Amino acid sequence: MTTAADRPSTKLGIVGAGGVGSAMAYAALIRGSAREVVLYDIAAQRAEAEALDIAHGSMFASGTRVTGGGDLEMLRGSDMIVITAGAKQRPGQPRLELAEANVRILEAMLPGLMEQAPDAVYMLVTNPCDVLTVVAQKISGLPSSRILSSGTVLDSSRLRWLISREADVAPSSVHSMIIGEHGDSEFPLWSQANIGQVPVDRWTGPGGEALFTEERKAELAERAMRAAYQVIEGKGSTNYAIGLSGARIAEAVLHGQDAVLPVSTVLDGYHGISGIALSVPSVVGFGGIRTVLEVPMDEREERLLHASAEALSASLSTLGH
Amino acid sequence: MTTAADRPSTKLGIVGAGGVGSAMAYAALIRGSAREVVLYDIAAQRAEAEALDIAHGSMFASGTRVTGGGDLEMLRGSDMIVITAGAKQRPGQPRLELAEANVRILEAMLPGLMEQAPDAVYMLVTNPCDVLTVVAQKISGLPSSRILSSGTVLDSSRLRWLISREADVAPSSVHSMIIGEHGDSEFPLWSQANIGQVPVDRWTGPGGEALFTEERKAELAERAMRAAYQVIEGKGSTNYAIGLSGARIAEAVLHGQDAVLPVSTVLDGYHGISGIALSVPSVVGFGGIRTVLEVPMDEREERLLHASAEALSASLSTLGH
Amino acid sequence: MTTAADRPSTKLGIVGAGGVGSAMAYAALIRGSAREVVLYDIAAQRAEAEALDIAHGSMFASGTRVTGGGDLEMLRGSDMIVITAGAKQRPGQPRLELAEANVRILEAMLPGLMEQAPDAVYMLVTNPCDVLTVVAQKISGLPSSRILSSGTVLDSSRLRWLISREADVAPSSVHSMIIGEHGDSEFPLWSQANIGQVPVDRWTGPGGEALFTEERKAELAERAMRAAYQVIEGKGSTNYAIGLSGARIAEAVLHGQDAVLPVSTVLDGYHGISGIALSVPSVVGFGGIRTVLEVPMDEREERLLHASAEALSASLSTLGH
Amino acid sequence: MTTAADRPSTKLGIVGAGGVGSAMAYAALIRGSAREVVLYDIAAQRAEAEALDIAHGSMFASGTRVTGGGDLEMLRGSDMIVITAGAKQRPGQPRLELAEANVRILEAMLPGLMEQAPDAVYMLVTNPCDVLTVVAQKISGLPSSRILSSGTVLDSSRLRWLISREADVAPSSVHSMIIGEHGDSEFPLWSQANIGQVPVDRWTGPGGEALFTEERKAELAERAMRAAYQVIEGKGSTNYAIGLSGARIAEAVLHGQDAVLPVSTVLDGYHGISGIALSVPSVVGFGGIRTVLEVPMDEREERLLHASAEALSASLSTLGH
Repeated sequence: MTTAADRPSTKLGIVGAGGVGSAMAYAALIRGSAREVVLYDIAAQRAEAEALDIAHGSMFASGTRVTGGGDLEMLRGSDMIVITAGAKQRPGQPRLELAEANVRILEAMLPGLMEQAPDAVYMLVTNPCDVLTVVAQKISGLPSSRILSSGTVLDSSRLRWLISREADVAPSSVHSMIIGEHGDSEFPLWSQANIGQVPVDRWTGPGGEALFTEERKAELAERAMRAAYQVIEGKGSTNYAIGLSGARIAEAVLHGQDAVLPVSTVLDGYHGISGIALSVPSVVGFGGIRTVLEVPMDEREERLLHASAEALSASLSTLGH
Repeated sequence: MTTAADRPSTKLGIVGAGGVGSAMAYAALIRGSAREVVLYDIAAQRAEAEALDIAHGSMFASGTRVTGGGDLEMLRGSDMIVITAGAKQRPGQPRLELAEANVRILEAMLPGLMEQAPDAVYMLVTNPCDVLTVVAQKISGLPSSRILSSGTVLDSSRLRWLISREADVAPSSVHSMIIGEHGDSEFPLWSQANIGQVPVDRWTGPGGEALFTEERKAELAERAMRAAYQVIEGKGSTNYAIGLSGARIAEAVLHGQDAVLPVSTVLDGYHGISGIALSVPSVVGFGGIRTVLEVPMDEREERLLHASAEALSASLSTLGH
Repeated sequence: MTTAADRPSTKLGIVGAGGVGSAMAYAALIRGSAREVVLYDIAAQRAEAEALDIAHGSMFASGTRVTGGGDLEMLRGSDMIVITAGAKQRPGQPRLELAEANVRILEAMLPGLMEQAPDAVYMLVTNPCDVLTVVAQKISGLPSSRILSSGTVLDSSRLRWLISREADVAPSSVHSMIIGEHGDSEFPLWSQANIGQVPVDRWTGPGGEALFTEERKAELAERAMRAAYQVIEGKGSTNYAIGLSGARIAEAVLHGQDAVLPVSTVLDGYHGISGIALSVPSVVGFGGIRTVLEVPMDEREERLLHASAEALSASLSTLGH
Repeated sequence: MTTAADRPSTKLGIVGAGGVGSAMAYAALIRGSAREVVLYDIAAQRAEAEALDIAHGSMFASGTRVTGGGDLEMLRGSDMIVITAGAKQRPGQPRLELAEANVRILEAMLPGLMEQAPDAVYMLVTNPCDVLTVVAQKISGLPSSRILSSGTVLDSSRLRWLISREADVAPSSVHSMIIGEHGDSEFPLWSQANIGQVPVDRWTGPGGEALFTEERKAELAERAMRAAYQVIEGKGSTNYAIGLSGARIAEAVLHGQDAVLPVSTVLDGYHGISGIALSVPSVVGFGGIRTVLEVPMDEREERLLHASAEALSASLSTLGH
């Protein structure tokens, strides 16, 4: 007879039961992203309450079992661990100070997680996610394919949504990515952006005029990048779209989809960049990152990529990594 | 050529962009509950920010368009309006005081909503939802089929989930409802509860013993009813499961599913009860409540139903309705 | 690093690329029932063509990979094997002759399948499915939990659809099962049938009259049982609903849903019946049948169940089993 | 109170209950493409039987109501009509003879359909679909936005699936279209094809070599175009993938998705082509074709597009249109 270990079950562990972690668990329940979702937090009562509030909707979903609590054992055997826990930037707090705090949290937490889920794919959602990906890879000694961050998947989704509204087409017909650092040095890969096989530079408005001029593109890039700030100003934080993005990436891993997504992972000789984690189009499937894709860039994009790498490199060295 | 008005589009208006309203809009986006979802709140910036945070995930969903803001006009032509706005119970605040506050809010708000969406089905999620349903029906003068509340749909989902875990079966194979007031006088309709055609009273555990004894049933009923308090204690409020429940009910209306759900509506001669809104099994489809079902009850259930009606009647008369 | 064998992948093997097997693979692709679906047939070219025609739609589905062919090796490591292959009843051919032919096919085929998928759950869709389930269990020596047939799952779906149309409610709000032999001696378990918590006997029409009288119930039972003949008369065979039913049952197994379904498995002391396979409400999850449920029956139903068992017993002994 | 006519219901009429029409209705039920699907055929019994066989699976689907028969009235008020009816090519029959037969069938059928569904979007799946689209537009006098054919949507899906297997990525990460005639003169728009932002010409294999050489691309184009023949050789006809493609396009119309799809519609000055229906990337939403997209082509593609137009022009003039 088959044993539990042989069963084709998928288990997703989410570390951190704050707004992001719980929205991700909620999205995972509704979408059926995994058969089992565990929401873990050192604040055990919070994790239990969030999981309970989500599980109470099981009736209207398709079979995902959600539990939560403060016992690390609950994560045992997870196929994927998503880390959303960490300090949040306080008003006026220097970014570097935040990074230091979250590096320390990660250092404290990772060994325990790896003991419970030694074969899992790890994904960092906590910020600064690119910096933390490098640190996590060093701490864990795992192959870089198994440690990624959600990177610019959400930023790209925001850009595609903005473009779709300008062009009056479905977001799923817009193909465009923001790459680089998940932060101020990120940039859209305009040279490859297209809408249903039409390069954005060739897309025309009702009067036949080019719709995506340099000015418009700059404005959209700015809006995509600033979107988080706009949301934070209005509601204090972001959680829904990042939760959905995380569930989406988890499905690519857990269901072995081999989907191309701009996640971030430690690069090794990518356009000359090594030892830095940046988001670039990558094939995501069983086991995590299956291939980092060599995407053509124009001169400006090439320059921006290296600027992004340098910004991250500076952060890393200040942090002593 | 067809005009916008003729198109088979579905529009869901959600009033109140707090935790419940925004979780409902998020669930509606992921599930594709409606083609268009509008999240309205007098706190315009909050509504905009929540809607934006949800819409940013459009890339990973199936075509629902989510917008938000503080302009009532956005709700124009909605097929369904779900009201989640209202005051929340402050610690120590008498329940009645809360009811009075929310009745006043409803009185102020309904006329404006009905001007925008005169043909919509209205659903109240704000508490005390049964009391507010009676008030809303009076204010609006609409047929009771078009004003309902989410009632005990969520309470029933909680009970089914609890039973499913005891019996080790899928929640979707458990058929059970909590009926009556959405509040302290609610009760499970145990006489009709079954698990995959087996009455719960006949369900046996591994050793052949009856699993759902009177004690166990009482305990499960208590836990289902207290579940909200448990969640609130751990996270301060409930929002995910009620959001999902609301999206589920909205689908029954918008897609004309004729699904049986324990929603609350003003009764007229139901087991001798009139002029009170209580949750009982009802067929929900286009136009709202299509039929309130005559469900058999044992003597105790009959007694509890009337006790529930009296509790509500007392609240209503204290409120002057 | 994780190896292929450790990955939480689900593999569904379908044996027989006729109308039923291919409709099941098509439904499985659209629903995402498994990550991998293999359509096997000794008529290799047919299996390849059907699989290709299905796989060509992968673009519009959610990641299931469909392949087909005549090489048994393709089924290696399947988590579930569904057998749809077999002779079809020729006009005028005695039922017993058909049974003999399909028993021989099964005897020839099973050892090869078990070599490829020794840990799989096996499901028979080929008719007479109850008889073949007993034979398959004997041949294979596997525990009865791992050899089931689709039994009366489809018959029950037909009944629920018929009832839903009479009552004007969603099929998902109707709870009713046909049990016993998948064939002429099957019968609805009317004593437990209900519509959204209302026993069917208590369901009333618009004028308050009982809608499901004894005559109406007898007629509906007859129509559900004769439905296959009606379809066969009009299109020569049935394939769509049985394909969808099969995909549904496969999901219960592959995703470990623990759903209650009226599948057929070899009984051991069930209402005094042993060594016969009949459909009764059963919990279906990882590993196949997890529990056969003790459902209450009234006297008439008890009698019909035993009549069904005797009919099958007679068939089995004529076949020498 | 809202009346039936005001309700946001979607109705899809499918004309022709053969393999294609019934597979489309089956896919529409499983996906929930419309609330109501009517399968019409002059062979009334066949249409009834196919619809019944599909409706019997309603239990396992999400609320689409499927009916079938030979009464044109059933199609009344459809939002979209998909025509799959027509003669099939007999072995040795000249293509032109087939075209003539299907033109006559269309001429006989269209007026009756338009009487029932004057506001519907019409889609031709019957072959030669491009020729029939021109004829149908003339007969009906409707704006070309409301008469389209499934064109090369399926051919494109086949190509994307083939590319996805070569590149080892999800089909949904491959962006590529076959355009032109749905037939021998069609061709892939290689100049715009990409995989997750990487132009196919720049996609490399494991050793860093270009994977999609001119030879490989020519071979894939050939295989995509010949795929139908391969399927027909093995199973006698194609039905599953075209059924799924049809349901997908119907969703774009019925749900107002504004998705970019290579459907075919009568062009007016498109790259200098007028009065001919060809597949090119088009925005599909409420009301049918919302925009035909100006996609850049290289010299060879431009030449192939005009060759395709000329081939169709010749067919049309031979047919007297």
